[in-house]
Formats: sequence, C-alpha cells, structure tokens
Amino acid sequence: MLNYLSAGESHGKALIGIIEGMVAGLEIDEQEINRELGMRKKVYGRGKRASFEEDKIDILSGVIEGKTIGSPICLKIPNREKKFESETVPRPGHADLPGALKYDFKNIHLVAERASARETAMRVAIGSIVKKLLFEFGIDFFSHTLMIGGIRSNAKLSDFNQKTKKKRLESEIYCLDNETGQEMIEKIDEAEKKGDTLGGMCEVLIKGLPPGIGSYVHYKRRLDFLLGGELMSIPSVKVVEIGEGIQSAKMFGSMIHDALSFKEKIVRKTNNAGGIEGGVSNGEMIILRLFIKPVPTLKNALASFDIVSKKRQKAPYIRSDTCVVPAVGIIGEAVSAWEISCSFLEKFGGDTLAEVKRNFNAYKDRLNRYASE
Amino acid sequence: MLNYLSAGESHGKALIGIIEGMVAGLEIDEQEINRELGMRKKVYGRGKRASFEEDKIDILSGVIEGKTIGSPICLKIPNREKKFESETVPRPGHADLPGALKYDFKNIHLVAERASARETAMRVAIGSIVKKLLFEFGIDFFSHTLMIGGIRSNAKLSDFNQKTKKKRLESEIYCLDNETGQEMIEKIDEAEKKGDTLGGMCEVLIKGLPPGIGSYVHYKRRLDFLLGGELMSIPSVKVVEIGEGIQSAKMFGSMIHDALSFKEKIVRKTNNAGGIEGGVSNGEMIILRLFIKPVPTLKNALASFDIVSKKRQKAPYIRSDTCVVPAVGIIGEAVSAWEISCSFLEKFGGDTLAEVKRNFNAYKDRLNRYASE
Amino acid sequence: MLNYLSAGESHGKALIGIIEGMVAGLEIDEQEINRELGMRKKVYGRGKRASFEEDKIDILSGVIEGKTIGSPICLKIPNREKKFESETVPRPGHADLPGALKYDFKNIHLVAERASARETAMRVAIGSIVKKLLFEFGIDFFSHTLMIGGIRSNAKLSDFNQKTKKKRLESEIYCLDNETGQEMIEKIDEAEKKGDTLGGMCEVLIKGLPPGIGSYVHYKRRLDFLLGGELMSIPSVKVVEIGEGIQSAKMFGSMIHDALSFKEKIVRKTNNAGGIEGGVSNGEMIILRLFIKPVPTLKNALASFDIVSKKRQKAPYIRSDTCVVPAVGIIGEAVSAWEISCSFLEKFGGDTLAEVKRNFNAYKDRLNRYASE
Amino acid sequence: MLNYLSAGESHGKALIGIIEGMVAGLEIDEQEINRELGMRKKVYGRGKRASFEEDKIDILSGVIEGKTIGSPICLKIPNREKKFESETVPRPGHADLPGALKYDFKNIHLVAERASARETAMRVAIGSIVKKLLFEFGIDFFSHTLMIGGIRSNAKLSDFNQKTKKKRLESEIYCLDNETGQEMIEKIDEAEKKGDTLGGMCEVLIKGLPPGIGSYVHYKRRLDFLLGGELMSIPSVKVVEIGEGIQSAKMFGSMIHDALSFKEKIVRKTNNAGGIEGGVSNGEMIILRLFIKPVPTLKNALASFDIVSKKRQKAPYIRSDTCVVPAVGIIGEAVSAWEISCSFLEKFGGDTLAEVKRNFNAYKDRLNRYASE
Repeated sequence: MLNYLSAGESHGKALIGIIEGMVAGLEIDEQEINRELGMRKKVYGRGKRASFEEDKIDILSGVIEGKTIGSPICLKIPNREKKFESETVPRPGHADLPGALKYDFKNIHLVAERASARETAMRVAIGSIVKKLLFEFGIDFFSHTLMIGGIRSNAKLSDFNQKTKKKRLESEIYCLDNETGQEMIEKIDEAEKKGDTLGGMCEVLIKGLPPGIGSYVHYKRRLDFLLGGELMSIPSVKVVEIGEGIQSAKMFGSMIHDALSFKEKIVRKTNNAGGIEGGVSNGEMIILRLFIKPVPTLKNALASFDIVSKKRQKAPYIRSDTCVVPAVGIIGEAVSAWEISCSFLEKFGGDTLAEVKRNFNAYKDRLNRYASE
Repeated sequence: MLNYLSAGESHGKALIGIIEGMVAGLEIDEQEINRELGMRKKVYGRGKRASFEEDKIDILSGVIEGKTIGSPICLKIPNREKKFESETVPRPGHADLPGALKYDFKNIHLVAERASARETAMRVAIGSIVKKLLFEFGIDFFSHTLMIGGIRSNAKLSDFNQKTKKKRLESEIYCLDNETGQEMIEKIDEAEKKGDTLGGMCEVLIKGLPPGIGSYVHYKRRLDFLLGGELMSIPSVKVVEIGEGIQSAKMFGSMIHDALSFKEKIVRKTNNAGGIEGGVSNGEMIILRLFIKPVPTLKNALASFDIVSKKRQKAPYIRSDTCVVPAVGIIGEAVSAWEISCSFLEKFGGDTLAEVKRNFNAYKDRLNRYASE
Repeated sequence: MLNYLSAGESHGKALIGIIEGMVAGLEIDEQEINRELGMRKKVYGRGKRASFEEDKIDILSGVIEGKTIGSPICLKIPNREKKFESETVPRPGHADLPGALKYDFKNIHLVAERASARETAMRVAIGSIVKKLLFEFGIDFFSHTLMIGGIRSNAKLSDFNQKTKKKRLESEIYCLDNETGQEMIEKIDEAEKKGDTLGGMCEVLIKGLPPGIGSYVHYKRRLDFLLGGELMSIPSVKVVEIGEGIQSAKMFGSMIHDALSFKEKIVRKTNNAGGIEGGVSNGEMIILRLFIKPVPTLKNALASFDIVSKKRQKAPYIRSDTCVVPAVGIIGEAVSAWEISCSFLEKFGGDTLAEVKRNFNAYKDRLNRYASE
Repeated sequence: MLNYLSAGESHGKALIGIIEGMVAGLEIDEQEINRELGMRKKVYGRGKRASFEEDKIDILSGVIEGKTIGSPICLKIPNREKKFESETVPRPGHADLPGALKYDFKNIHLVAERASARETAMRVAIGSIVKKLLFEFGIDFFSHTLMIGGIRSNAKLSDFNQKTKKKRLESEIYCLDNETGQEMIEKIDEAEKKGDTLGGMCEVLIKGLPPGIGSYVHYKRRLDFLLGGELMSIPSVKVVEIGEGIQSAKMFGSMIHDALSFKEKIVRKTNNAGGIEGGVSNGEMIILRLFIKPVPTLKNALASFDIVSKKRQKAPYIRSDTCVVPAVGIIGEAVSAWEISCSFLEKFGGDTLAEVKRNFNAYKDRLNRYASE
C-alpha cells in the first residue's frame, strides 16, 4: 500500500519526502518534477520570495538508472538556509497561536517553520511521481483558476488535453478565460497596492479513471472521503465541492441526477455528480472545486497581541504572497493524484509497472465485455 | 488509538459495529443511543419505511454493569428481515452501476444492500458513544437545517445549549427559523407530490473543544483533513465548508481573518475561520456546513437501462425518502464526533475515563497559566 | 486491504468479528468454519468446559446466497451466558494483574473476560475464511504437535496432504507419531492428576505459497515481521521459530544455508530457512514453530494475593485446561493464514475472486517464463 | 501516533529516515546517535567494510536549537558512494532470488541494494532517539551476546546499569562472560579462516517499564505481537523468545509461573514470563532473546546458479561479515525501543516532553496508591 511521510521546515536544511510502496519500473524524470515545482511557484500574485528561489529536486534513493526499483523513494528539495528567528506575535488565520498553545511554545517561529505552506512543495513533487504512474494508464490531471477575489471565469471544461495545458500556461494565473483572467490580475494588483490579499476558487479535473475505483463498502475507502480529506488539508482551502454540489443542493432530484442510457457504451449526458457515485468512480471525469481563503499574512497587518507581554501588537509581516489560488490548483492535482494512486494500486495490486498494467488491462477487457455481452 | 469497523446490509440480519480503543469507565446508556437513532429517522421528508421501523441498539460486548471496560464495544441494530431480491436496472446517483462494474455483479441488489444509507444508522450509534465521551469534557455537538430546496433559514448561531436543542426538536426538519421551516416543509410536500426529491444544506457545530487538537505537522493529522474526509463520506454530501469558506473566497484578507486580542483571555470578535487555523482547533466553535444533493431514488423515475438486456428502462423505485437534509445533520454530528474523539484521545492518551480527565485537566491548567502568566 | 476487528467477552453475549476488504465471490460454508472451531476445542487436555460447549458460527453479513459480496463479513459465535462474577485475586501468568493496574480495576474479572483465550475462537473462524480463500490458489495450511511436557515427536514433514490431515485427526492431540503421542497423553494425565498443567511445541506449515510474497523494502511488509508478530500474539506462545532457527544459530553458515541449483526449475535440497529469505517467501514450504508455556490456571493453585486486602491468597481456579498445545496449532494456522492473505491480496489486488485469480495466474505464468526463458 | 519510514540503498547516496509523531522538547545529541551507530559497527567479526566506514548522522529537520519541535524528524546517514554494479547469481539465504522473482529483475543488485542489512543503521539511529525519550522516564535498554557458534555464555542478568554497559564495551563481541567471550572470538577466527560464517544468540533487556503498557484487548496492541514482529524483522533473526519460553515449554505449570506476593509492593521471585503477561508489561524486566542465523554471504561460497544462463555457479562474495550477533543485539535494542515508545505514547498521549511527564507521573502516582491503599 502506498504511503508517504514528509519532513522539513520552511527555513531548515531541506524538505524531504519518502514514498513507500511504489512499484518498480516507473521512469522518473527529475526535469518533470522540477517543472511541476515551478508551476506551483511562478504564478502571478506570489511574492518575490517564491520567484527568486527555484526549487530543484534531488532523488536520494529508490531510483536506479532512471527507474524505480520498488524500494522507498526519497526526495529532497534543498532550502536556501536562513538564520532562525524569534517571534512572539501570532498572525490571525495561521496555525501560529493554536500551535503555540498545543506545544507550549513561547516562540511562534517553532510553529510557523513547519505550518508554512512551503511543505506543499514536497506534496507537489510526490504528486508529480504518482501523476506519472497514473498517466501510464491514461489517467490525467488538470487544474485551472475559476475565481479570484470575486471575479469569476466562464470557462467550463468537459474535457482537456495538451492544448488546454498549453493554454493554461499562457495565463499567469492559470485562467483559461483571457478576459476575466486579466481582470483577476488587476484585482491582485489592487490588493497588493493596499497591502491586502485575495482568495478564490479553482477546479481540479481528473480524466481517464475507469469506473470501480474507491468503494462504498467501508467509509474510509470511499473516494469522496479520500479526496475530500486530502483537498481540505491543503493550507487555505476551506471548501471542497464535488461536481455540481452547491447547485444541486438547491434543486429537484429530477433536474440534477445524471440519467443513464446505453449506446454501445454507458452514456451520461450530464456529469453533475462529478464522476463519483456512492463513493466510487463512475467512469466520467472527476470534478473537484476548491474555495481558498485569502492569504492570512498581510502587509497592512491584522490586529494581534504579543503572547509574552499580552500587549496589543500588529501581526508581523514576512515577505509573503498576495494570492495563491493558481498554486493551490497545482497542489490540488498533486494530492488528488496521491489518493487516486492509493486506491488504484489497492485495486490492481502489483509490484512492477508491467504487473499493474497486466492486471489493469485485464480489468478493462472485462469492463468492455460487460458492456458488449 | 480509536478505530471502528461496521458491517451489515440494508435487508440483512443486522447492522454491526465494533469500536476498538475506547477507554474504560464510560457510562453507556442504551436509551441515549436509541434517541439519537430516532433523531436520524423521524424527520419530515423521510419515507414511511423510516418511520415505522424503530431502531434499537443491542450492546453485545465491551460494557459491563453499564460501563465500558476497555474491551472492544460491539453494537448491533437488528433489521426487519426481508426477502432478498434481484435487480438489473441501476439508479442514477447511486453506487448501483459503478459498484456493479467494480464487482462484476449482474444483480444490482448486491451493491445496493451495502451502499444504502442504512449503514449511517451504525455511524450514528457509534457517534452517540463518542459524543458521550466528549461531553464528559464539556465538548458538545449540534446540527440544524439551513436550507432545503433553495429555501434558506436565517438562523445564525454563535452558541447553543439545551434550549437550542429543545427548540430544534420542535421543528420536524430541525430548522430553528420557524417561518422558513414551514416553507421548507411545503417545498418537501410539493416535491413528494411530483414524485421528486430535494437536497439542501445543514450546519454542524462543535463547542467546548480546547485549542491544540489536530496538528499542522503531518497532513493526515490535520483536523480539516479528518473532518473534511469524514463529512464528505456521508452519502449525498457533495460539499463540505469550514467556517465562512465560500464567502471568504470572494473577499479581501483584511475583511475576513479573525483579528486577535487579549483581555484576560484570547479574544476573537469573529469566527470566519470556523474554529480551525492551520489544521488545529483554535478554541472557537467549530463550524461545518454540508451541502446535500437530492435523494437519488425518485418515484417519478429517472432514465436508465437494464444492464443485462442493455435496453432502456426507468430506474426502479423502492419506497424511499423525499428529503434527508435534517438526518444528514445528525449523521454529521456523529462522524465529526468520531474524528474529534480520535484526535482528542491521541493528544490526551489514557486507558480510563479518569486517566483522560487527569491528563485533560492538566492541559487546561497549563493553557490557563499560559494566558495569565 | 484486509482488516479485521474482534469483540466479545468470555461470558458475554457472543464473540463477534468483522472482516473488511474480503473479495466478492468466495463461497462460504458454515460447516467448514464449525469444523475448524471444533478442532480448536475437542483435543485431549482441554477442560470439560471446552468439550460440552460446541461453537457454532452465525454469519450476520457480507454473504448472500452462500458467497461473499465484497461487503464486510460479520461473524458471531454465541456464548452460553453466565452470571458475571467478582474476583480480587490475580492468577500469575495471566493478564489479571497487569490488566487491573492498567485499567485501575478492583475486579479482576473485568480483565479476565477479554484476556481469556476464548477470543481465539474468533481468530479461528476468521482464519477459516481466509484459508478457504488461499486454498483457491493452491495454498494450504497444516499444524501438528511436536512436543508436550518435554516428550518430543520424531515426525518431520517435508510435505502434507489430505491423508496427513486425516492421520492428524486420529490423534487426540494432533501428534503424527503414534507412540510418542501416547506418551504425551499419559503425561497430560499425570499433570491433570497433580492439578498441574503442561506446555509444549507445535509446528505450522504452509505449502503452495509462490515466491515473492512479503517484502524486504519496508520492515512492516516483511513476512517474518507479520508472521512473527501474529504467532507471538497467541496467548501462551512465548517463542516463535522460523525454519531451523535454533539449530542454525549454533552452526557454520556453510552447513545451514540452502544451496541453490536449477534443473528445469529452482531446486533447494534443504529448507533450513523455512521458506522465507530476506522477509520474502521463496517458494519452499513455510515452516513455523511455536513454543507454548503451560496453562497458567492451575487446580493446585499458585501463590498470589488479594489486590484489595493485600493478603496472601491462592490464585482462584476456574475450570480450565491442562494442555492447549494442539489447539494452539489450529490457532497458529488461522493467524498465519490471516497475514498471508493480507500480503497476498496486497500483491494481487482485485475485488472479486475471479479478478484475483486472473492476476495471480498471470504472475505464475511470468514466474514460469522466468524459469524457462 | 509514532510512525517512521526509512529509505536508502546500500551504495546509494544515503540512508534517510523520517520520524513522525515525536513530542516537542526532547534534547537530541548527534554524538549519542553516532555512538550507537558505532556500537553497531565496531564489533569483532564484522568485515573491514564495516570498520573503515564510520557512520555519522545528519539531522535535516525537526530539531531546532538542539530540541525536537514536534515536526517530523529527518535523519540522514550518508553512504560512501560506489559505482552500481550488475549481478546475476543469487546468494542463498538472502532476498536475492525471491526478490528478483517478485520484481522480475534480471539484475540481482536491484534487490541487494535495499535488502542489505545496511538499512538497520537507520533503525539504530531512530532507536537512539526513542531510547533517549524513554530514558527520560527511567526506561533503559541493554543487550549482550549469549552464544556464538555454539559457545554459550553463562552470564545471567537480573539487572543492569552503567557499570554493566561499560563492562560490555570491554568485550569486542559484547559478551559479559570474559572466558567464553574469548572462546567465541576464537571461534570467529576459525570461521573466518575457513571462509565460513557464524550465527548465535543475544539477549535484549528492558528495565523500568511500568506495568500496563501494551494491551490484551486487541491482538495488534499486545506487546508480544509488537516486539515479536519487530525483532523477527531484523535480518538474520529466525527465532524470538520471550522470557524462559523454550524452557517453560518443557515443564509443569507449577514450576514455571511467577508466583505473586505483596510486601509493600508487588513481588515476584522469578521472572520466567520475561516481563509480559497477557500481552501487557507487568513491571518486571522485559527479557527477549534472539537466535541469529550465520551470515549468508560466504567467502567459501555456496552453490548457486546464474539466473540468466541458468548455469551452475558459485554465489558471489562481496566483502562481508563473519558474525553479526553483537550488532544484532544493538539493533534489537533499537527496534524494541521503537515499539515500546509507540505503546508508551499511546498510553500517555502528549505533544511535549513535559506533557508526557505530567501524564506519566500521574499514572505512577496512581499505581503507588493502588499498591498502598
């Protein structure tokens, strides 16, 4: 069973991740991982710190001659080291204060060093590896920005491909709708000028997943449990929506459920369920939407207090981002890929890529026969 | 570490649950569990099947002379037995079709028997026990209906108590706002007349949880991961929101983050974060909202097809509910209580209720000193 | 992933077990389970209580029309109920005293009710199901008694079959060596007469397991970790030996390691490793030996004290067994089968028996090609 | 809950370990870890490779200003890099052949790189940290050599202290009995001259553990499950014995069980149970014995075959050890400390060392009252 642990502080020596349970025989390309790490960083609205410091992966184990060998894969992303500092004023919206209470710390940096969203760089690196695994089976991931600071994109995707991915990169904020994309950028500029921050919404799409992944028999194997938990664990995400969840809550059942028919294959004209029924993938595209709160570190700082003197004090400002919505999309792809991979390997077993493919293809054959017999 | 497994089909002999890891010395009252089971059932909009069949708990192990003994607790809810039937037409919106593909079943009842929301009765029973545990520490749970079929309640709670709980029971749909509550009921009547169904939204509130529960150091110990996953795993839930997640995504950071001050104790004037910052409880009320899709079994049945003949066919109608929103609130309390209990016992350890209390009180003392020193 | 929880006290309503993660399509025969339960009970040296009370399985869920459906399987073994009593004198060698200290109990029965080896009946029932699963793949289990009270059998098996199983049943203590078997029985008689008890040694054999099950990459997936832990967790087992572990510790490497050769297939003339190299099955028979301490409840009772009065007192005698060695063999088969099944399904994946078979056969084909290419 | 993953190949860049769940506030001393790493290496009988290459720990995360901060701790032990080679002849007694079959490798080095006992260096480093944690609570670990190649030490310890530890270091093979220690060394010399190898037996002792750690309620929480599994997972260990397991299997119950009495405190005159009754610690010293097979890499090589050509061939010899028994003792301390720590923190909870101490001391107070009231 796939499993990972990550470690590392924001200003420590490095971020480290160990993946246990990966099959042997998967090609690993450091450049690809670096590309994903770059996509998390180089987006409009992220601070200077994000842009100058390029993340580069170092694979410490588990890969020999470019291929996984079944052993734990260890990934390292070195940090630019920095002197460790002391801080006694917690920032609202961060783990600063609850973390300091939990661990009885007088120095809030001891919390912030690990609670920092910097750890998501490792999640993206790990996600890049499992995305590569799933891509071998025709399963692909995509994310784009649907809203920033109240400005909403009209883009509605029923599919995506390499062209869509290229188009996304033309937008500094991964918005497929050029015009509103420009408005979003202006909104970010406005926020930055005011020393303020913005949140928004992005969408994560998964295509090519066959029906039957996940389970309804045990709640912890449900795909909605796994994806719901993973996505909600991304810093700043406060809402997770599957398919047309918000809309369907207001409507009659007859208007929202995806009617079935059969024309050589299973046909659904709509996909309001977002590809998951009863906790199980149904073969349609998986649609996930994330609502992101504004970055809680503000230049125009929020009211707070000093935990030692107990005196009123403005929250500290450390060079930070104005808006992280597009980055959250990239992280969302990564963590979804993680959970899908776990469920996928649980169903198909196998110690090598070839063995998983054999098992997978036999299942696909059976599905095809099911439809045709 | 707390852990549970549940078993049982919708028309099998019984639902069964085993809880492992519960402390010794907790009083268990079967009547209380039955009351919670009743609250899940007897709400307006649920079908006749729900109302005539009263659920009654049978405790098979783990409790001697009314108290837990540290051994696994086994709960049983007998079913009214029924002949097992065969079905070849899947209902859209259910696990019927993806489940049949996963398990290569020609008889969809083999899926529906376990995928049925009937299993949530066991989750409510288990939740009742862990709610009782947490109540020993002043932690309490509440849920109410905020919206049905587009009709929205104006109730906004910053606190709740026994009176609020009593008021909830005055509403057949657990709506605290009498007037809109009446409109919701009428909307349900309208749906029922049309052979249609409705979804909606409910809120789950948790009060009394001290700061420092959950963690930011490892994603799987984050409270938002655990609650997000659990709540999304309730059948029909398609959206989970923590605090003012949807609103805050549209606003500037300066407008939404909960500023801090200190006046003898930590003070936040707002609670837009919904009690969780950085994956850790911050001492404020935990606010969770669930968006629920309309029940997918419709009398005025949806289009489907026969998986054997592949011919077009209306989805089957089995006596079902028109609206389950208030029941989902009760289930939401239960599953939240489960995850909170797990994180709670992880922090406080202990094999007996007295030992957990000793450890808990020492932590509370330390928190108080932290604030005052 | 396979997982189970069990519940139930020795004199409570019933023992209950829930198995999660079992594939669909496996035929379940209650008679077979009852037969295994009987084999655990009806052996020479077990007390009257064991013999008069026949265990009968009741399947509460997960099986429809004689086959598993992928849903959790719930097993119940009813107890003959008995009034619950109070006890303040702990029996040496039992969990009585450490359990009472852990849980702060003044009544030792609150420990003994769950710590009783009665719970192993459920492990045998669960083992019976997973043995049936593995038998579908040609994997079979056997146990026999090698020593009781110092009297050692000369039986040394390099294989076993239905005839061996039949022969085992001819011995009341599952000893394949008639003569020493008779001596063992006399030794048990001697012990019983003296109000004393005996331990001994038994062997668990597993044949048909293909090479490559388990893993060397992560310690918790090693077959020796899993089997070592499981077997040591059987009440009264104090030593677990794999292959010729004790002998080989005294010898030169050249005398003990199993030399390899290839004659159409891989050949090892010896199997001192007991079928496991580097934590992975190597295709030879798995050989496991368990050393069992004498039953710690003695009619001629051991010295103890009253935990309330602190006064010297003989340990209480409740009708008990004189020797459980043959029963431990049956339990050993069951728990080994559990761990083998977990590792087996992890490698082969699959939601239905047919799917696991497809994946398994493809692996076997690959192994055969490996040998021949 | 404590959890760790390790990674790294024998000739890769480094061994890496991540510990998740460690409390904050524990002092970490790199020198201490290095000392333990040295103890694993510099013993008589280990090859030159072991002696020239000194292991040095590098802490990459989780420790700030010499103390843990609650975040994952990442440990790194760099390897002296070496060109990766190819090998087609499996060594009997290693994972070489079953590993190659499992992963369909034609190059056995892809197995050997991870299956190498080199990974135990990381287990020792991790063990060093949890031993330090437990030492804060008066829990201490010791191991010594009891037998090598059939020569048995007479040392029998009912206690140990700093002096015992010092005495151990006077022996190059950690044997407390000087005379037989010298014979063991001569036996190793004899084996080395013959190009052969030796196994043996060592003992791991744990003192200071209070009663009530572990559990009888669920098999996977039993201390014998956890320790049995962990110890058996050490490469070359084929037998695990708790207390006088082997002897007691041959004797009457009346001769072996540890009678109880009370003289101001609980008194047991013997400790044949080895400190564990019913899967729970009973307050006596934990006694664990490990039987170790001879190192399976022999200069005077064993018969094998080439997996590509299928031709008879001697197993390859890579500079290796003649005897690892004393090193296994050190590893045994480490892995036992790991499992004890997990069970310990499960019972006492706590996020900081101070919090665990508070909870621990309250439990000890209760135990003392229990004895005296």
